[in-house]
Amino acid sequence: MNSFGRIFRLSVFGESHGSAIGLVIDGVPPGISLSASDFEHDLSRRRSGAQGTTPRKEADLPKIISGIYKEKTTGAPLTILFENSDVRSSDYASLLTTPRPGHADFTAGKKFKGYADPRGGGHFSGRMTLALVAAGVVAKKIIAPVNITSEILEIGGETDIQKALDAIAGTGDSIGGIIQCTASGIPVGLGEPFFDSAESLISHLVFSIPAIKGIEFGSGFNAARMKGGEHNDPILDASGKTLTNNAGGINGGISNGNELLFRVAVKPTSSIGLPQETLDLKSGKTGTLQIQGRHDTCIALRMPVILEAATAIVLADLGFLAGSSSL
Amino acid sequence: MNSFGRIFRLSVFGESHGSAIGLVIDGVPPGISLSASDFEHDLSRRRSGAQGTTPRKEADLPKIISGIYKEKTTGAPLTILFENSDVRSSDYASLLTTPRPGHADFTAGKKFKGYADPRGGGHFSGRMTLALVAAGVVAKKIIAPVNITSEILEIGGETDIQKALDAIAGTGDSIGGIIQCTASGIPVGLGEPFFDSAESLISHLVFSIPAIKGIEFGSGFNAARMKGGEHNDPILDASGKTLTNNAGGINGGISNGNELLFRVAVKPTSSIGLPQETLDLKSGKTGTLQIQGRHDTCIALRMPVILEAATAIVLADLGFLAGSSSL
Amino acid sequence: MNSFGRIFRLSVFGESHGSAIGLVIDGVPPGISLSASDFEHDLSRRRSGAQGTTPRKEADLPKIISGIYKEKTTGAPLTILFENSDVRSSDYASLLTTPRPGHADFTAGKKFKGYADPRGGGHFSGRMTLALVAAGVVAKKIIAPVNITSEILEIGGETDIQKALDAIAGTGDSIGGIIQCTASGIPVGLGEPFFDSAESLISHLVFSIPAIKGIEFGSGFNAARMKGGEHNDPILDASGKTLTNNAGGINGGISNGNELLFRVAVKPTSSIGLPQETLDLKSGKTGTLQIQGRHDTCIALRMPVILEAATAIVLADLGFLAGSSSL
Amino acid sequence: MNSFGRIFRLSVFGESHGSAIGLVIDGVPPGISLSASDFEHDLSRRRSGAQGTTPRKEADLPKIISGIYKEKTTGAPLTILFENSDVRSSDYASLLTTPRPGHADFTAGKKFKGYADPRGGGHFSGRMTLALVAAGVVAKKIIAPVNITSEILEIGGETDIQKALDAIAGTGDSIGGIIQCTASGIPVGLGEPFFDSAESLISHLVFSIPAIKGIEFGSGFNAARMKGGEHNDPILDASGKTLTNNAGGINGGISNGNELLFRVAVKPTSSIGLPQETLDLKSGKTGTLQIQGRHDTCIALRMPVILEAATAIVLADLGFLAGSSSL
Repeated sequence: MNSFGRIFRLSVFGESHGSAIGLVIDGVPPGISLSASDFEHDLSRRRSGAQGTTPRKEADLPKIISGIYKEKTTGAPLTILFENSDVRSSDYASLLTTPRPGHADFTAGKKFKGYADPRGGGHFSGRMTLALVAAGVVAKKIIAPVNITSEILEIGGETDIQKALDAIAGTGDSIGGIIQCTASGIPVGLGEPFFDSAESLISHLVFSIPAIKGIEFGSGFNAARMKGGEHNDPILDASGKTLTNNAGGINGGISNGNELLFRVAVKPTSSIGLPQETLDLKSGKTGTLQIQGRHDTCIALRMPVILEAATAIVLADLGFLAGSSSL
Repeated sequence: MNSFGRIFRLSVFGESHGSAIGLVIDGVPPGISLSASDFEHDLSRRRSGAQGTTPRKEADLPKIISGIYKEKTTGAPLTILFENSDVRSSDYASLLTTPRPGHADFTAGKKFKGYADPRGGGHFSGRMTLALVAAGVVAKKIIAPVNITSEILEIGGETDIQKALDAIAGTGDSIGGIIQCTASGIPVGLGEPFFDSAESLISHLVFSIPAIKGIEFGSGFNAARMKGGEHNDPILDASGKTLTNNAGGINGGISNGNELLFRVAVKPTSSIGLPQETLDLKSGKTGTLQIQGRHDTCIALRMPVILEAATAIVLADLGFLAGSSSL
Repeated sequence: MNSFGRIFRLSVFGESHGSAIGLVIDGVPPGISLSASDFEHDLSRRRSGAQGTTPRKEADLPKIISGIYKEKTTGAPLTILFENSDVRSSDYASLLTTPRPGHADFTAGKKFKGYADPRGGGHFSGRMTLALVAAGVVAKKIIAPVNITSEILEIGGETDIQKALDAIAGTGDSIGGIIQCTASGIPVGLGEPFFDSAESLISHLVFSIPAIKGIEFGSGFNAARMKGGEHNDPILDASGKTLTNNAGGINGGISNGNELLFRVAVKPTSSIGLPQETLDLKSGKTGTLQIQGRHDTCIALRMPVILEAATAIVLADLGFLAGSSSL
Repeated sequence: MNSFGRIFRLSVFGESHGSAIGLVIDGVPPGISLSASDFEHDLSRRRSGAQGTTPRKEADLPKIISGIYKEKTTGAPLTILFENSDVRSSDYASLLTTPRPGHADFTAGKKFKGYADPRGGGHFSGRMTLALVAAGVVAKKIIAPVNITSEILEIGGETDIQKALDAIAGTGDSIGGIIQCTASGIPVGLGEPFFDSAESLISHLVFSIPAIKGIEFGSGFNAARMKGGEHNDPILDASGKTLTNNAGGINGGISNGNELLFRVAVKPTSSIGLPQETLDLKSGKTGTLQIQGRHDTCIALRMPVILEAATAIVLADLGFLAGSSSL
């Protein structure tokens, strides 16, 4: 379903080439200062325009529909709309019959019996992450002074990001990347035993983001090759500070007071300028597809702020839970 | 919270050294044949006893408390208990004041204000995965003929598993591993757009399992170093069959009819026989901890059937959702 | 929280004097014909204008933001906005300090620490029922051919409705009423055992509607004075048809195939033209309040279509559940 | 589904004539003193034995399976079992083909395709309310010092309860009743706007109880015949105290600090000793049914403590929500 969270509950809606995309957040505490300008910093970090990102330009102006009175949250549902303006739907007309490899065209077509909005990926568009980033802005205010940062560790296999962009430029192909997200200042005790572990909720939300192929916490996949004696993080003091952080800030699904740390793998953008083989649903035969439209060469470049938002949303939800049950 | 799923809803309860651990499943369709013997195969795969696993021996006999009449499910909640028998709680008495590195002792202690059951990790014990495996047995019946298998790809960095076990034997240390899980026969259309993508739900449940540090679908972390032209899986026919399977069987969060494929990283068992530095909560100073008790050298060895169960549980839940909404 | 339902999930948002009120429905099946004109009939039944209703005039034009493509539902979240136009917020300025008896001014003020939007009741306004009616239009399409009707049994204690309106006109006071809702064509089997009985879900949603004070199913409160021999409905044939319908169409929380039948009590509108005693929060003393603004003399008059909507929403949610689990 | 609540979450399971009925509560705060003896008082109030109640005798000894360590709650799921002992299943053998009027035999048979446990009503038995009462004991501890009481206002249309019992004794027929429940000491602010109003949650849970036909808050159905000027409760002081309590302690779905007050109608027990007409599913014709087994003449007599439990459970859930969001 299109909602996430138990107390800080986020719902998203909209389509890439519809009239608007938007979000409703239920459970925002009253009295938080919030105005359209608060969103500008994070929205601009997500926005396209830099080398390697799509030339589609959207103003991304948040229109606050409900939940605010005199620039303070009221405690009622907070609704924000982003109108779509720079839409070129004719680019996508042919995709109804020739599903793009790597996209949801085929699966959404089947699941929704041919009624899914095909324009720009419809509800499956990466543009939906705009709603996540907006929700993240609100969540960050709630969880202050927790500090969340993300960085691109590599794209196209290179840690020199500019070098990777220069290499792919003009080829018509796309590249992926690895992003690391950290959060500090988290109290001990966020996360629930078993099904709602901190890792469970973060991974749940992170895999909502299109193009994510993997996630690892702390030592991650390297843990598989470590010994217990080196992997266990010695506890140094009563605050829970540990000498190493292989745990990624989480033990038993619960925050341990150290830095929360995870990395994700982002696949290369599925929309590429090269001809591809795919099925023609009308003829039932395969043929060559040449995708038109405007796309990101490396969607990973726009991912850091989205991961920060996802982290903030989970922490906002867990913080309330913690507040309500046991912290 | 201790429940998972929207329609096929699983709740688990119990502690490692309490009277029993158990599960309730709400949403089991009526008329499914089910008796205690149906659980034996999967439970024995999870059970300890082989080299590298704990010498704690539990009979793991499922006691069906509700939801069955004349060996058929009734549609009412299905409750199963596993009594704990081989309990040596005195092993854990000292852990109240000296939290074990890598375990939930410190975080659970803080979160639950000192009231958490410390014996054998209490509710945070790996023994809780017994409930997952039992639920998996029921889920597998529901999603038949979907076929789920898991295999150990490596432990301790070795693909020769016996060699890895021999190397760690007698050292008092522990090793981790990587497990791959695949499921075939899944129809196109399972998974929901955005928040309840198939990856989101699987990763949510998989990270409930103690000791998991990472998960990747299809190409996984390798995707970060691939180009779009090689990563996109060409669609071959109207069933959705693709030439390659970098997607891991999922596009846009929805099953595409190909094999579902994911891998997880399992950390080395946190309980080791070597002396470790940790905090003494009474003195507020660090000291040396020597863990007694019985433990697995390589918990990854017991993981394959648990991952299969997690996969089956998600598919059972998604299958119903799909059945109810759009498939 | 501001959402209802498990599969057909409705969220509402907005304030009486904000920019708009609206709704998001998650779980609408794809392929249902839907356009703005489909809402006109039910919205007009809820709209004010007749004798006994508020002179506030709103066009109530639904603006479909998402979830529709070529006038068919897509399966993605359906979002509908109703812009507020005829707003006179100055009417409510004084209510910040003098809470109106019978309204949520005092409780919302406390709960939301003074940040709740006070204008026209804000999120607590009866105007929010517009979202329910709109959701009901969609739900009715899903559950067709179930037929739901409502009728006013009495207002102001009179079954002659015009007589009651004439008696209250010009007095500045308000009156309540009793409404009956029936639904026919419901299959046997909707409703879940115990917590999600059909009565539980219907009453849950009905008590969301402002001004409802009671609900009874079938024989209702009269059942308390009946004997079992007269109350039990004899089953006549294999369709489940019963001779009498004291059950109100539900046994054990599950629809029995007969007419679903319930009645609700609606209190007299809290906003009246008469002077009332209330607390002045500034002085801490009681004083006389004279409510300005425009209000309904008898809110029960606008209730029938709202109750139909509530019933349709529950049936849509239950129908999906039934479809997914056991019917 | 068989669970209720968002934070204080209750799941129930079991069948009347199965091995046990039980409950799991997720979200119990740690550190609450709890032992089997704490349940005795409320369980004895629900238990049969007095005139007008079934001669079936169950010891109703709570067996705490999980969530307790050293007689304090741990914060992990609390599981309690009640074993069924005094079971006479042969009494119900014929009911598979002749559904009892007023019971769930017909609807459960259809919904669960003939697989529902028919013995004593199976999962639809009034015996399931034992789980509610047990959960209520825990909830009452959490919400202390809120004080909840219930009283029987009338049975069989008589306020003299003994007179009503004497009149029905020996007739083989059954009678219903009206129960009033009040709760004092509730802080202002419990309940959520719109869908999770206090009335919505209470009525949701109350209609889970078998035999309830109606519920009304405060003035209830009488409100339909009152004028606004008399129905509005004047607010007297800053604590929210009102002169009258037509609101039943709730405004806008949120507790207003006054006494919470509601009444329910209980139907006459469906199982009666008189011959009844019903369908014979084998022949497809109607015939006469003579119910054997042991039953309550007036189930309303056992209802007060069940309603208290339901109220406490809702308040425990709302209290946490309030704690986490805005109070």
